Amino acid sequence: MQEKRLLVVGAHSADFVWRSAGVVARIIKDGGRAKVVALSYGERGESGELWKVAGQTEENVKSIRHAEAAAAAAHLGAEFEAFDLGDYPLNVGDDDVARLAELMRDFQPTIVVTHPEIDPFNPDHPVAYTTVAKARLMTSGAGVESGFKTAPPSEFLVFEPHQPELCGFLPTVFVDITDVFEQKKAAMAEMKAQQYLQSYYRERAEHRGNHARKVTGNKAIRQAEAFMRLVPNVVASL
Amino acid sequence: MQEKRLLVVGAHSADFVWRSAGVVARIIKDGGRAKVVALSYGERGESGELWKVAGQTEENVKSIRHAEAAAAAAHLGAEFEAFDLGDYPLNVGDDDVARLAELMRDFQPTIVVTHPEIDPFNPDHPVAYTTVAKARLMTSGAGVESGFKTAPPSEFLVFEPHQPELCGFLPTVFVDITDVFEQKKAAMAEMKAQQYLQSYYRERAEHRGNHARKVTGNKAIRQAEAFMRLVPNVVASL
Amino acid sequence: MQEKRLLVVGAHSADFVWRSAGVVARIIKDGGRAKVVALSYGERGESGELWKVAGQTEENVKSIRHAEAAAAAAHLGAEFEAFDLGDYPLNVGDDDVARLAELMRDFQPTIVVTHPEIDPFNPDHPVAYTTVAKARLMTSGAGVESGFKTAPPSEFLVFEPHQPELCGFLPTVFVDITDVFEQKKAAMAEMKAQQYLQSYYRERAEHRGNHARKVTGNKAIRQAEAFMRLVPNVVASL
Amino acid sequence: MQEKRLLVVGAHSADFVWRSAGVVARIIKDGGRAKVVALSYGERGESGELWKVAGQTEENVKSIRHAEAAAAAAHLGAEFEAFDLGDYPLNVGDDDVARLAELMRDFQPTIVVTHPEIDPFNPDHPVAYTTVAKARLMTSGAGVESGFKTAPPSEFLVFEPHQPELCGFLPTVFVDITDVFEQKKAAMAEMKAQQYLQSYYRERAEHRGNHARKVTGNKAIRQAEAFMRLVPNVVASL
Amino acid sequence: MQEKRLLVVGAHSADFVWRSAGVVARIIKDGGRAKVVALSYGERGESGELWKVAGQTEENVKSIRHAEAAAAAAHLGAEFEAFDLGDYPLNVGDDDVARLAELMRDFQPTIVVTHPEIDPFNPDHPVAYTTVAKARLMTSGAGVESGFKTAPPSEFLVFEPHQPELCGFLPTVFVDITDVFEQKKAAMAEMKAQQYLQSYYRERAEHRGNHARKVTGNKAIRQAEAFMRLVPNVVASL
Amino acid sequence: MQEKRLLVVGAHSADFVWRSAGVVARIIKDGGRAKVVALSYGERGESGELWKVAGQTEENVKSIRHAEAAAAAAHLGAEFEAFDLGDYPLNVGDDDVARLAELMRDFQPTIVVTHPEIDPFNPDHPVAYTTVAKARLMTSGAGVESGFKTAPPSEFLVFEPHQPELCGFLPTVFVDITDVFEQKKAAMAEMKAQQYLQSYYRERAEHRGNHARKVTGNKAIRQAEAFMRLVPNVVASL
Repeated sequence: MQEKRLLVVGAHSADFVWRSAGVVARIIKDGGRAKVVALSYGERGESGELWKVAGQTEENVKSIRHAEAAAAAAHLGAEFEAFDLGDYPLNVGDDDVARLAELMRDFQPTIVVTHPEIDPFNPDHPVAYTTVAKARLMTSGAGVESGFKTAPPSEFLVFEPHQPELCGFLPTVFVDITDVFEQKKAAMAEMKAQQYLQSYYRERAEHRGNHARKVTGNKAIRQAEAFMRLVPNVVASL
Repeated sequence: MQEKRLLVVGAHSADFVWRSAGVVARIIKDGGRAKVVALSYGERGESGELWKVAGQTEENVKSIRHAEAAAAAAHLGAEFEAFDLGDYPLNVGDDDVARLAELMRDFQPTIVVTHPEIDPFNPDHPVAYTTVAKARLMTSGAGVESGFKTAPPSEFLVFEPHQPELCGFLPTVFVDITDVFEQKKAAMAEMKAQQYLQSYYRERAEHRGNHARKVTGNKAIRQAEAFMRLVPNVVASL
Repeated sequence: MQEKRLLVVGAHSADFVWRSAGVVARIIKDGGRAKVVALSYGERGESGELWKVAGQTEENVKSIRHAEAAAAAAHLGAEFEAFDLGDYPLNVGDDDVARLAELMRDFQPTIVVTHPEIDPFNPDHPVAYTTVAKARLMTSGAGVESGFKTAPPSEFLVFEPHQPELCGFLPTVFVDITDVFEQKKAAMAEMKAQQYLQSYYRERAEHRGNHARKVTGNKAIRQAEAFMRLVPNVVASL
Repeated sequence: MQEKRLLVVGAHSADFVWRSAGVVARIIKDGGRAKVVALSYGERGESGELWKVAGQTEENVKSIRHAEAAAAAAHLGAEFEAFDLGDYPLNVGDDDVARLAELMRDFQPTIVVTHPEIDPFNPDHPVAYTTVAKARLMTSGAGVESGFKTAPPSEFLVFEPHQPELCGFLPTVFVDITDVFEQKKAAMAEMKAQQYLQSYYRERAEHRGNHARKVTGNKAIRQAEAFMRLVPNVVASL
Repeated sequence: MQEKRLLVVGAHSADFVWRSAGVVARIIKDGGRAKVVALSYGERGESGELWKVAGQTEENVKSIRHAEAAAAAAHLGAEFEAFDLGDYPLNVGDDDVARLAELMRDFQPTIVVTHPEIDPFNPDHPVAYTTVAKARLMTSGAGVESGFKTAPPSEFLVFEPHQPELCGFLPTVFVDITDVFEQKKAAMAEMKAQQYLQSYYRERAEHRGNHARKVTGNKAIRQAEAFMRLVPNVVASL
Repeated sequence: MQEKRLLVVGAHSADFVWRSAGVVARIIKDGGRAKVVALSYGERGESGELWKVAGQTEENVKSIRHAEAAAAAAHLGAEFEAFDLGDYPLNVGDDDVARLAELMRDFQPTIVVTHPEIDPFNPDHPVAYTTVAKARLMTSGAGVESGFKTAPPSEFLVFEPHQPELCGFLPTVFVDITDVFEQKKAAMAEMKAQQYLQSYYRERAEHRGNHARKVTGNKAIRQAEAFMRLVPNVVASL
């Protein structure tokens, strides 16, 4: 069976933690690989606590955010890479798309995960979606041999946004993260300035666990993460 | 791992063949069980060729349709059961829903498949959907112990209708049926009066195979069947 | 070319006038036939002015409503038939559906028009839709010979409801009614107790005329009626 | 200004507590009135813990559920009325719709709240929706005088279901329940056999409070309840 | 209570008049403030009558359009500002977005209104939407302190487009403009070259008034404007 | 009656053949004109077979693709023009949009056809849609005289994509291509390196023919092409 290689791309450096740390840990625990890319550090729009420190600088905020994200990824066993493209707004040029496409050709992900296309509360999340969707298709060709280097087609999903219904998020997959939940909590704990979100996403994982129990009747599921598939799931059997 | 038990419910006796014979064969080949229920024989609305025979009677049409469906199911290894509730219109009373619910409590399906909720070209298909959805929920309780006998929660999907876009059908799962396609062809061949549909659904399976190849890059897939999941898929990992 | 036969089915006796009198007149003027069916008189819920008359009775209200609708139909050249099934709520039994199906088998409509499926402001309009959709499919068979008498497949559209956006109404067809607008006004004028609606739907026809001009650039269009097709339009050419 | 009269209709006797206790308390605290109707007790499908008691009977379960719901309503200051129509399935006849319509004509609600129309996990919730929608329209007439007693038009909303995205629930209104949250907790605590749901909906209220803070920037909001409006909101100004 | 500050942004200089003059007048009459921004004058695509004048120049058309819009705004008591970015196509660069964001940080709107995101009949309206949505989010931060100056979160709505159903416009709010309708008529009258639209939008306001009466039963409402909220409405109570 | 002038715009040079060759042939056979524009040759992403040839160059691939498309267009009687803007990704600048708009002002199409707005499997198809939609609106003005040269409003449709349900494609028009199907086959045969697609789209045309027969009962229809209208259809009568 093919090795699983998961690529998670977030707009800001902490996004992958709240929304997909469980599945990252799961895949690595099962022998797969996972790579996390942050298009920006969220240094302006999502680092409010850090800016309360007197004399704070953008470089220092970025440095702290990098360290936190790298430490979080380490708890899960994943590689972390930052593109540092700026936030609020996140501006992505053709070169940046090409850089991500090149990374995809190198890493050859079997699964790609990012933000949903819509987010009425965040200007950068839809930009991240568009960037990933474009880079992924640019590496794919039309299902035939191409005049350029391709990556094999990958599964494509989006993780759960903060206000799911308002982002057109329909959960179509619940991943049981019960076994790796301690790792997710450890990763979240690295985001020291965001105590409230640690509680919020711990409870959210338990709610999704409740939903997954209801769907299956499997009482062993305690925590879960929700995803929406964007292309059909091809399987050997139901 | 739990044994797979697939329940397919069609409005008319031939529906399961065109739309899900591949997955039925697949599950049985892999050691699971499959049961097919036909709510009616389609004796009035979908047996036109048979009515061209002089002196034809409804009883005789039903008898022929039963034999064909049973023979098709036998090619796949599945059990076939007919409720014989009439067609055009298919009328389903509370007792009939209760009968299907009882069958679910006995068979304890892990996967339930039926028609989509919408079909602008057929009065009976949506009735079949409603019947199955209601019976399934009536056996489920609210995820807690109940004051009545329940069946464990099952996966719930709809198979591909004849004009997918007009029935709100979004294919979310492609099942590779390459290995069992000869069985599907044999099952379809039992529907002797419907030569055209045999070609149509053979080509359709190949088209869906093409789509599945495009999604995965897996050139070994030749034929596929398409389904839409109605409740989230709970999985151990992506 | 085949003769056009239009069947319009309204929940209440005045519905066809406001929403489709133009197209009824148009088809008749062009040599086709048109039949209007009212499932009820709207005697309780839509005849408020009449109930202000001292000593008013339900029978008398129905009688007045019948006369008004028949006179309106006469202005257009159409036949009017009332099923008198009651309103608020409109209750339609299996026998009533069968009656409408029988009427369809006799009249053999090439075009069927009724209310949209959704109306958050009226309990009877969705019932009319469901009745018509069911009767229409019960006369159609599955595109093959059937064990019962059928009518040829017909075009199927819904007319414009009072609050279009809230009824899921997407106008896909604008019919130019400029030439027959005087007839529509005459038909509307028969609804003597509903002065306001006469102004409202006169202005509405002009607004739809404005929309149709914008779509085509054809300045000769002054008034139009809007419809939504429910099944694809099959044409000899674009 | 007109007195607010809120009518909440649940399929089962505990539904109103988890989903709308806050807004019920809020309206009463502000001098309005609120009435809660439960179409059934949820005695078979949602009373699992009670059925674990040896020798349990349906009558006894209903009696306990009635007492709990009445006590919860009392914490909020609302009247509680049970229709006792049975659950799994909840069967609602024309007489039951008429009974609810009569209740609406008497209570003259200015706001009506019930379940969303869709729930893939519960057979009774959509039945409750349909019942309420039908009764509400049957009391409304067509905006003119009618041949029957009417209630004034009311606002119409649905409360938050257990798995919002899968029920087509789009939150369009967040009500700040910070001030009355202790009352909601007291009401929830009456549902003694459902400890887990008490935690779940306490956390859910806090999450919705977080969403409401994000929308407004108002840090004083700690807990909120989410609703979806089904008809437009008519206001004196933005 | 917080002062209301309404910001209306139109693609062309007359847009705000037809679609939102009533609510602008209403808010000012109640003691709030309102500012109107026009991204372009619509000098090429929407000034057809002016171009019929021999020797007409683009500068002169802009000058006339500015005067008309300023006069219309004056009837309502609002400030008018033109960005003069050109039309057909309206091109908005990053600097223009930043200019609008800066204006938002200064004006600190509590309510922002613009065009819907979709318009199959106009290339500039969706550009206006995108510009406003982006500028608004760039001033908002992620609900926490930010590394840049923010404006408080604002309500966000779109006004009614010319062909609502085709622009995905679902009216979720009707504002009663009966009291200020004379002001709206005066504002519309300034658009001297667009006589037909004056009639059209006068009738439209009356139709929306009819809809609002139907929703509420409040016969005092004669004219209304329709809006669609894009983010949930947070309220103290239903 | 006005001469029909059809403009088909594809992202890659072969797109028009698979998806609209029938309707192109039909319109020309009936005395209209048709022009095909290819924004790129698909030289990198869709010419896999050609790249298997040793020493292949991009220029040579383009040259072969041009010859094939021109030959296919010749079978239908249409003019073919290539913009040669590159593929994977197709990049379209403002100048290219202006070039297409200029072409529209010259050709004055009465019908414009292109790709749907969404395609999760192709990065270039949505770019083609956006280009065409923008150019078309830039030539239209606002339904009044404009300060620039306009083309008359045209009908606007999208042709069938490879995986229709996943591209939001709802077939609203089926065009009977039975009479011109030999021409479509001849055009498809020019795409020598794409044997499989020739079979695929031959079968697809027959499936759509089956759908069109089902909609109409017209057994003479053997092959059809499916389209989705994007703006309402204005007609003289139903």
